[in-house]
This record gives sequence, C-alpha cells and structure tokens, in this order.
Amino acid sequence: MKPNFSLRLRVFNLNFWGILYWSKHRVDRLQRLGDFLNIESFDLALLEEVWSEQDFESLRQKLLPTYPAAHYFRSGVFGSGLCVFSKHPIQELTQHVYTLNGYPYMIHHGDWFSGKAVGLVVLHLSGLVFNAYVTHLHAEYNRQKDIYLAHRVAQAWELAQFIHHTSKRADVVLLCGDLNLHPKDLGCRLLKEWTGLQDAYLETQDFRGCDEGCTMVPQNCYVNQQELEPYPSGIRIDYVLYKAVSGIYISCKTLKTTTGHDPHNGTPFSDHEALMATLYVRHSPPQHSPSPTHGPAEVSPLIAVLKEAWTELGLGMAQAHWWAAFASCVIGLGLLLLVLLCALVAGGQTGEVTWLLLSPSVGLVLGAGAVYLFHMKEIKGLCKAQAELQHVLRRAKEAQDLSVVSQPAQQEDRAEEQ
Amino acid sequence: MKPNFSLRLRVFNLNFWGILYWSKHRVDRLQRLGDFLNIESFDLALLEEVWSEQDFESLRQKLLPTYPAAHYFRSGVFGSGLCVFSKHPIQELTQHVYTLNGYPYMIHHGDWFSGKAVGLVVLHLSGLVFNAYVTHLHAEYNRQKDIYLAHRVAQAWELAQFIHHTSKRADVVLLCGDLNLHPKDLGCRLLKEWTGLQDAYLETQDFRGCDEGCTMVPQNCYVNQQELEPYPSGIRIDYVLYKAVSGIYISCKTLKTTTGHDPHNGTPFSDHEALMATLYVRHSPPQHSPSPTHGPAEVSPLIAVLKEAWTELGLGMAQAHWWAAFASCVIGLGLLLLVLLCALVAGGQTGEVTWLLLSPSVGLVLGAGAVYLFHMKEIKGLCKAQAELQHVLRRAKEAQDLSVVSQPAQQEDRAEEQ
Repeated sequence: MKPNFSLRLRVFNLNFWGILYWSKHRVDRLQRLGDFLNIESFDLALLEEVWSEQDFESLRQKLLPTYPAAHYFRSGVFGSGLCVFSKHPIQELTQHVYTLNGYPYMIHHGDWFSGKAVGLVVLHLSGLVFNAYVTHLHAEYNRQKDIYLAHRVAQAWELAQFIHHTSKRADVVLLCGDLNLHPKDLGCRLLKEWTGLQDAYLETQDFRGCDEGCTMVPQNCYVNQQELEPYPSGIRIDYVLYKAVSGIYISCKTLKTTTGHDPHNGTPFSDHEALMATLYVRHSPPQHSPSPTHGPAEVSPLIAVLKEAWTELGLGMAQAHWWAAFASCVIGLGLLLLVLLCALVAGGQTGEVTWLLLSPSVGLVLGAGAVYLFHMKEIKGLCKAQAELQHVLRRAKEAQDLSVVSQPAQQEDRAEEQ
Repeated sequence: MKPNFSLRLRVFNLNFWGILYWSKHRVDRLQRLGDFLNIESFDLALLEEVWSEQDFESLRQKLLPTYPAAHYFRSGVFGSGLCVFSKHPIQELTQHVYTLNGYPYMIHHGDWFSGKAVGLVVLHLSGLVFNAYVTHLHAEYNRQKDIYLAHRVAQAWELAQFIHHTSKRADVVLLCGDLNLHPKDLGCRLLKEWTGLQDAYLETQDFRGCDEGCTMVPQNCYVNQQELEPYPSGIRIDYVLYKAVSGIYISCKTLKTTTGHDPHNGTPFSDHEALMATLYVRHSPPQHSPSPTHGPAEVSPLIAVLKEAWTELGLGMAQAHWWAAFASCVIGLGLLLLVLLCALVAGGQTGEVTWLLLSPSVGLVLGAGAVYLFHMKEIKGLCKAQAELQHVLRRAKEAQDLSVVSQPAQQEDRAEEQ
C-alpha cells in the first residue's frame, strides 16, 4: 500500500433467516437478495442463517460473476448458517465452533443443533492483510430470564480470543454478524474491550437507516411484534465492527441499514435488517485518532468487564452444577428402581407391572446419564473460559500496577529535568 | 534479542498415563515426576493424559518454586488431559477442541469423553515471541482396521490450521505432544507439510535414548506387550517439533528419551517415554539452513499430501453416511412399530406384549435418533475439513502454476541479460 493511498471497502451483512419449511418467502427472498448483491457489487457480503447448503449453492451460482470467491462454514448438525461472498480472492480461511451453545434437549430453540461458530477469511488488498470474521451467537429467547446468558458471554469471549489470536499479522480486522447482544450488553463490551474493535454505527460520519441503528424493527413484517413490544424503535443486535493496526487508519464513511423492506421492492430480505458499510483504509491517521493506545486509562474498563464476565460465568457454572446434581439424583433413583425390579424378577414375582417398568427405568438411567454428561461438559467449558479470563485479568492488573509505578517515576524525572 | 545472541531452551514432554483408578502406580509416578521436573528445572514441561485436575493441582503446588506459571486446558467431560508448567511467565493462552474425536457410544475407548484438544501458551523470551503448543490426538486401537483414521487425519489438519493461524507473529513455534501417529503416517506428513515444523529427532545433532527415537517401547513394564508385537523396537508417536521464522534459526542440540524406566529409579514415569530436548535459538542461520523456502520444490509434496488427506476424509465421510442411513432405517422401523402398537392400543387390543413393547420402541427411536444426529454432525465436520483442504490445494496449485510460468520467464530474462 502506497503512502497517502486510500482504499475503499464496501461491506454487506445480513442475518438471512433461512430456516427450511419455516421462514416465510425464503426462496423469493433469496432470489431478490442475489439480485441486490449483484447490482450493488460489494467487496464482501457476509451472511448468517443461510441454514441450507442448497440455498448457499444457488446463491453462489447466481453471484459467481460478481463475487468469484465464496465459502460456506460447515458445523453442527445443520451447519453454522454462516457464509461469505467476496469480489476478491480468499487467501486463507478457517473457523472456530463455540464450545458452549445451548442444550440439545431444548429442541424447540434449535441453537445446539446448528453449531454456532465464527468463520474467518483472509484477503490481501493493495498489499494489506484483511481478516474478515463472520459470526452468529446464541439467540436470546427471554431477556428477563435468559438461561443462555452464560453461554452467550462464553461465546463472546471465545470470539474475542479467536480474533485476538488469529489476527496478529492482519493490518485490518473486520467483524460482521448477528451477535444477539444489545450494544451495552456484557458480551458486547467484553468483545470490544478485549479486541479493540470499534462499532461502525458509533464511528460513522454518515448514518442512514433505522432509528438508533436498529437491525430488528417493528416495521418489518416478518418480525414477531410481541417480542419487540418493550422496544418501540427496535433492537440493535447485528454489527459491523472494525479496527486497524498502528500506522494504518480505518474509518466508516457511511453506514446504511434497510428499513423494514427491500431497498427496491416492498417486502424485506429477512426479519433482520441488512447493514451496508463503506469503509476507508488510509496510511496516515487523522489528528484525533480514536484508535486505542495502551495505558492505564484503557486497562481499567477491561479489568471491570473481565471481572463482570467472570462472575456471570460463575453463575452459569452454579446452574450447570445444579443440573448435574439433579441428573445424578435421577440416575440414582433409576438404578434403585432397576435393582428393585431385578430383585422382584429374581424372586419369581414377574407380574405385568414389573416388566412394564423395566424399560422405562433403563431409559431413565440412560437419559439422565446423558444429561449428566452434558452438564459436566458444560461445567468444563465454563471453567475453561473462566480460567482464560482470570489469566487476562491477572496480566491486565500487572500492566496497570506497572504503569501506576512508572507514572510517578516519569513525573519525578520530568520534575528533575525542569 | 541481540545479534549473535544464542538462547537455550530446555523442553520436557510426557504422556503421563494418568487414568484415575486404572493407571498403575499413578500417585507414586506423579510424585517422582514432580521430583524429577524440580531437579531438572526445564524451561517448559508439557504433559498429556493428566486426566485428573487434582493431579494437576498437586503437581502445580509441588512445582511452584521452579515453574511459577502453569495451566490446565479444560475440555470434554473429564478434561483434555493437557497441561503446561513454565519457568517463564505465560503471556497469553488459548485452546482449540477438535471437531471430531471418536464416538460417544464407544465408551470403552473413552476418547470422545476427554475432548481432545490443542493448547497454546505464548511466552516472551529475550525479546522473542514463543508459541508453545501441546496436544494429544485420538488413540489408535487397531492399526489394521482403524475406524478412527479419518478423525485423526481431520484432527491433524485442525492442529495444523490452528498453528498456522495463531502463530503469525511468533518468532519460534514449538509443538509437543502425543500425536498417536507414526512418523510416516498421513496425519504426521500433513501437519509437517502445512506448518513447516521440523522433527527434533530427525534434526538433532545428538540423540540419546530408545532405538529409532521410539516413545512406546517393549522394555517399559506398563506397556501392553501384545500391542507392540509387530514393532520389536517400539513405536514413535510422541514428538517435539519446532520452527522459527525467517531471520531466526532454531536447532536441536540434544534430544533424549527415557528408556523404559525412570532416569533415577527403576520404574518408569508412564507407559510412554518422556522426551527432553535442548533447543538453541540464534539470529544468524547457518550456511545450509534447513528452514523451508517457498518454491515449486516445496509445493509438490504439499499438494500430494493434501490430496491424500482429502481422499481419506472422503472415505470417512462414506462411512459416516452409511451409519446415518442405517440409523434412519432403525428410526423408521421404530416408528413403524410405534404406529402399530398405538393402533393396537386404539383398537382395544391392550395385551401384555403391546405394553411391553411400547417403551423399547420409544427408546429405539430416540437412541437411533441420537446416533443419526451424531453422524450427521460427523459428516459436517469431515466436510468442513475437506473444504479447507480443497481451498489450500487450489491455492497451492495456483502458486505452483505461477512459479512454473515465472521460471521460464526468469530464465529468458537471464539469457537476455547474458
């Protein structure tokens, strides 16, 4: 990249809502989305909830002339739903599936089966390395009593860690996706604090779209109006986040959202609104660069949010321990019943009820056993995230203590010089 | 790091064989291992199969004065068994749990429950960034008919990808662990080709230990002699691998293995042999540096091994498809039986046999349903690895084609210059 050179990058993000046999007008919406992406010719289009690989394939075929590079991130039972279409060659790609992602017995919520993940594609543009991430975190079904909160916080942490460890040689980092997190939610703050990513909506010079940048709005005919009742303007849960390394400056010139309907026709592309960002990448930072610099001022909020996340994971762990203990009791009960039934059979008392109860007892032991193992695995996952948080917390505190010690020393030096 | 400066790094690796209530003399071996590590005072000790967190904790307490930094990598139901003890502060850490890791219904093999993973610790030594990885891949129970081969190849690929994407700013990369792969096995070649890691046993100037560098030998009293019958010298499945970035040179001065017994007393530390490597890191490379350089000569073996891995994963996929289809048939059969039984009950024919068959039928449907879902997930995991391999293969072929095109052009240029 030459000095004084400015690179423009147009990015599109949408949670497509592509549940087979469930999402309304899926085929028609996919068709119109393809047409729109072809007309607009973005540099990068990142999609979530493209649950069917056939849908991805048909979109890929349609977009091939405009977006020669594409990838679908496979995971879970159905797939991660994540895919990317790029005008530029994809140099490298990989993905990370989140350790914790809901419960398999919550079939009606379905998140566990999808294998929520984060996908990474690496692009080389004008001599710069671009790491573009796309993700979708666990859905929030009940904000007042959110049983998935700990899992979502753990996912946000894993996402932050994945970006932190895989973007070390990247010049520009871009994260798009449906985080299922409101802007001030713990997961969102944790992600931003640990990665240093900036929110396009908050940073842009020119925003056009839904009030407060919302990406699920009551105007959208596919949205469950009842769920949005407490939020008259809607909610903002889809994001374009970015950062650049020192020496390179990235800014968001414009950010647009769809406003409850297709930009060309009446019906919307999805129950979520699409985000369209125009980013500029330059060499020289402006006078007052908002890019983060290391120092005590930045360490404190990181420490605070790390502590908060640690506590939240602890609450999740207590819940998981309770379920594991409950499952143990059920296993015990089932085994007791089995022993009793076996004793009855051995004693020759083979009544109808004895035989009838035998298989349900075996089922009870096996079912509760599976639940027990699942929650033991959940405990390990939460414990792992807590240990990583603890490590970063310790390092951040050490950095803070060091800077507190060195600051008075510097002041003394300056006084002596004067 | 100053020019002409040489940094010495002493590394220890051992698969500890720490299965609770199963592995012989576990407590005694742990005690002696702790004593040995304290006496030897390595820079880094990386362990596998420390299945119990209590064992890790007792070792941590014992090693605290010599190795102030330690971490246990938690995953699966029991834990990953991986841990690290370091004389130097751990700057950063993270882990990746392998997508595929055997089958939950193969309870007697147990790998699925452990959540096999790769752990990463980042150290800063003399101004250099050291990425140290520790891992343990799926065990090989039957080399002639290895039903886990595709999973192990997929794990080797994920390990290579994890190292590739997380070590971009590292000056030195070190990988220790029990790969459960013989040196010429596909997974081992894939890992080495894609990461450029070098094998300490093959590179060292001074090797002392078991014949052919074996790490499971018949002399070891804990080893299952029957399993090692086809290999009179033993097998080499534990490794110390390393590489350095351009401008830095790493070499293995000495590599030692234990030889079937504790270096001080009679009985061994584990059923595996320990590896002890002394590595030297320098600025200036020697005259004939073995560090990889990019060019057509290196691309060809990479392409060959990528193709081989792709085919192997395809075979695994066919097997997974067969199991999913089989489970579907069983589900269908179970449902048919259930409908029949319900019809009998509805028709008033509530004989003893009808009631007796009801719960096993439900169990059959649920059990086969779980097996079906598991294998669908396996297919997605294999498919994901294949897609990544395919992408790298395409890029490698493009690089090869480019270099073939540019080589005659360069030769022409040279001819013109002459």
